[in-house]
Amino acid sequence: MILPETIRTELKQGILTVFLNRPGMLNAYNSQMKNELVDIYQKADKDDEVRVVIVTGMGKAFCAGKDLHEGSSTFATDDDLDSYRLSGGELSMVVYLLKKPIIAAINGPAVGIGLTMTLPMDIRVVKRNTKIGFNFAKLGLGPEAASGWFLPQIVGIGKALEWVYTGRFIPTSEALQHGLVNYEEDDPLEKAYEIARDIVTNTAATSNSFSRQLLWKMLGEHHPYTSHLIESKYFYWAGNSEDAKEGVQSFLDKRPVKFPLKGSDLPDFFNVEKEEKNK
Amino acid sequence: MILPETIRTELKQGILTVFLNRPGMLNAYNSQMKNELVDIYQKADKDDEVRVVIVTGMGKAFCAGKDLHEGSSTFATDDDLDSYRLSGGELSMVVYLLKKPIIAAINGPAVGIGLTMTLPMDIRVVKRNTKIGFNFAKLGLGPEAASGWFLPQIVGIGKALEWVYTGRFIPTSEALQHGLVNYEEDDPLEKAYEIARDIVTNTAATSNSFSRQLLWKMLGEHHPYTSHLIESKYFYWAGNSEDAKEGVQSFLDKRPVKFPLKGSDLPDFFNVEKEEKNK
Amino acid sequence: MILPETIRTELKQGILTVFLNRPGMLNAYNSQMKNELVDIYQKADKDDEVRVVIVTGMGKAFCAGKDLHEGSSTFATDDDLDSYRLSGGELSMVVYLLKKPIIAAINGPAVGIGLTMTLPMDIRVVKRNTKIGFNFAKLGLGPEAASGWFLPQIVGIGKALEWVYTGRFIPTSEALQHGLVNYEEDDPLEKAYEIARDIVTNTAATSNSFSRQLLWKMLGEHHPYTSHLIESKYFYWAGNSEDAKEGVQSFLDKRPVKFPLKGSDLPDFFNVEKEEKNK
Repeated sequence: MILPETIRTELKQGILTVFLNRPGMLNAYNSQMKNELVDIYQKADKDDEVRVVIVTGMGKAFCAGKDLHEGSSTFATDDDLDSYRLSGGELSMVVYLLKKPIIAAINGPAVGIGLTMTLPMDIRVVKRNTKIGFNFAKLGLGPEAASGWFLPQIVGIGKALEWVYTGRFIPTSEALQHGLVNYEEDDPLEKAYEIARDIVTNTAATSNSFSRQLLWKMLGEHHPYTSHLIESKYFYWAGNSEDAKEGVQSFLDKRPVKFPLKGSDLPDFFNVEKEEKNK
Repeated sequence: MILPETIRTELKQGILTVFLNRPGMLNAYNSQMKNELVDIYQKADKDDEVRVVIVTGMGKAFCAGKDLHEGSSTFATDDDLDSYRLSGGELSMVVYLLKKPIIAAINGPAVGIGLTMTLPMDIRVVKRNTKIGFNFAKLGLGPEAASGWFLPQIVGIGKALEWVYTGRFIPTSEALQHGLVNYEEDDPLEKAYEIARDIVTNTAATSNSFSRQLLWKMLGEHHPYTSHLIESKYFYWAGNSEDAKEGVQSFLDKRPVKFPLKGSDLPDFFNVEKEEKNK
Repeated sequence: MILPETIRTELKQGILTVFLNRPGMLNAYNSQMKNELVDIYQKADKDDEVRVVIVTGMGKAFCAGKDLHEGSSTFATDDDLDSYRLSGGELSMVVYLLKKPIIAAINGPAVGIGLTMTLPMDIRVVKRNTKIGFNFAKLGLGPEAASGWFLPQIVGIGKALEWVYTGRFIPTSEALQHGLVNYEEDDPLEKAYEIARDIVTNTAATSNSFSRQLLWKMLGEHHPYTSHLIESKYFYWAGNSEDAKEGVQSFLDKRPVKFPLKGSDLPDFFNVEKEEKNK
């Protein structure tokens, strides 16, 4: 058995806590972390000892987004277009299919995939005044992790677009007001445990399992996957684009960004009906 | 003509007030109440004298949920699986198809079906600081009355899941903040009358009728029925389960609950596409 | 080249500001304004110099709704039923298909189509304490501009129905609380510029374009058009009805309204499946 390296887990009294565990890198997301998260989520789903899952970060950050150590080519891929799937979207689909309550305790900064990875979770508790945001547009990129579907469902289309267009940091009070998070706390992990203990102590596992499946699916069963497919096609293009190169490089250089592409340079990714038929 | 026993009605100036009328039982819901409500709603729909419907409770409660006098076998059924339909879902579908504005004046405690029966109504006004909640998970049961669809539409998926998972009482201020109710008032019935009088006095019945049909249907015409079907299959199983027996019995005994089933004991109820084709 | 008369435009630093320009008429909407808006939106969509569109009103109003100079027959039409399409819905579909961020700076009163025309826009900023409302029910009319779909998406079904049923003015603080607007400001145009400048300066046009298409379409690609078709059929009937004549006339006479029709006079407009097949 190979122990996970990028995450650490702890199971106590029916509550599985998953710690993102690259504290020296602000728990930056990489492909190993994705694989280890998928693995632990799928095991938790089958393990009757696990009643509730909590995800949080080791150290001061929750997750600072994708590891950018590959620099301006971080988002480039040489995969085949038809088979290419975004890592974040693959992870989101696993969380979406979970049959147990899952709570994000956002204990510190959560940016990009660090924030979108929490959207398919059920409940988000955020540390008061920490830095969170969907910064993709500033990197010359767009929504991923099926957030094209999840985010408007959670906060409404108006705020979703404002946050995605600007890529700005979202004050946690604004996140609370618009429902991005259920609670804003000084100790988000303690609040998550409070909710989890209430579930474990007072309710039936069969009820939780049924409720999670029913409520999410009634929102539109195939929609997250449709979003994931479109996002994957877009990133296949965008990750190789001059905009993403400039976006990431300017971020690393800490200088103002100057995107080279025009709006009309974007190909058409929206033959949605065809996507749905191919599913 | 047989007069209804579990409800009382009053028609004045275009406003039909329906009082749940088992005050000695905190207006607990039973099959007679369901039949009498269905009957009055359908008559109101055809009666041009009725412009707006208000539903409220006699005495101190709105509705304390399903009458539990049958004890731990309350939710058990010996119906045929294929034809079994939850009573609350049948009622919700009638309310959903109404062509008139319908307002819930939640004048006191509303729990379980006492609360979910208001979700297909248009506007909810709640008495400040009264006890409301979706307590099904504490009874070893799950969403009914098509609340699997209605609740996330009204309050968003995040709060919907938190409330359904925990089954806890919801402070009325929290209900207001997340849109479960439109108003929190000391006298919810008076506020309901204020809204109803505004509609009757200033607007066209034809416009109200068109608007009600259009706005609800644009949210997803078949979805409430799909939720109702899945919930019915689940309750056919859950109502006979050891979890429901223990859930109801522990509630009646006022002792901590200890659910015997494991999460993996839940059968698969989510072949949604097949359901939709059979509709 | 014919210059537009009912609107005025200004392009500076990537931001196209569209001013509704009939200040003597409180920028009342008419067919010329609709045509000129469609034209400018479609041009803006193709022009890479335009990164963000802002819509606001000249003078003290944003838009006082449809120009009622034709009196009680304002909404009557002698078009053919099958080809009849509401002007507001046609405009909404053009905005819906835009590939750039579009912000409404509601600088003063916005009523009827003056408010519904902003619903397919992404972000709404409203002047504090100005008068806004969906007044159709008071005129014997109903939702248009595809607001039957847009409004519940933006504010939730509960508030949407309350506002549409009553047709009352909506305090801007209530509009903010329920997400109808993103911001309530003393100077809404300045706030809109602040958001627009943030987008232009810091983000990629390709990202904005992708995000706008993805997030709106994941909410239900064909739904706005379905709503538009049903609303058009309804208005074809309602615009010629005695209710609309009385509604408009009583408004012009500044006297209490007395609608002649009964709820049961409304024809059935909801064979939605058939509509969808005919699309």
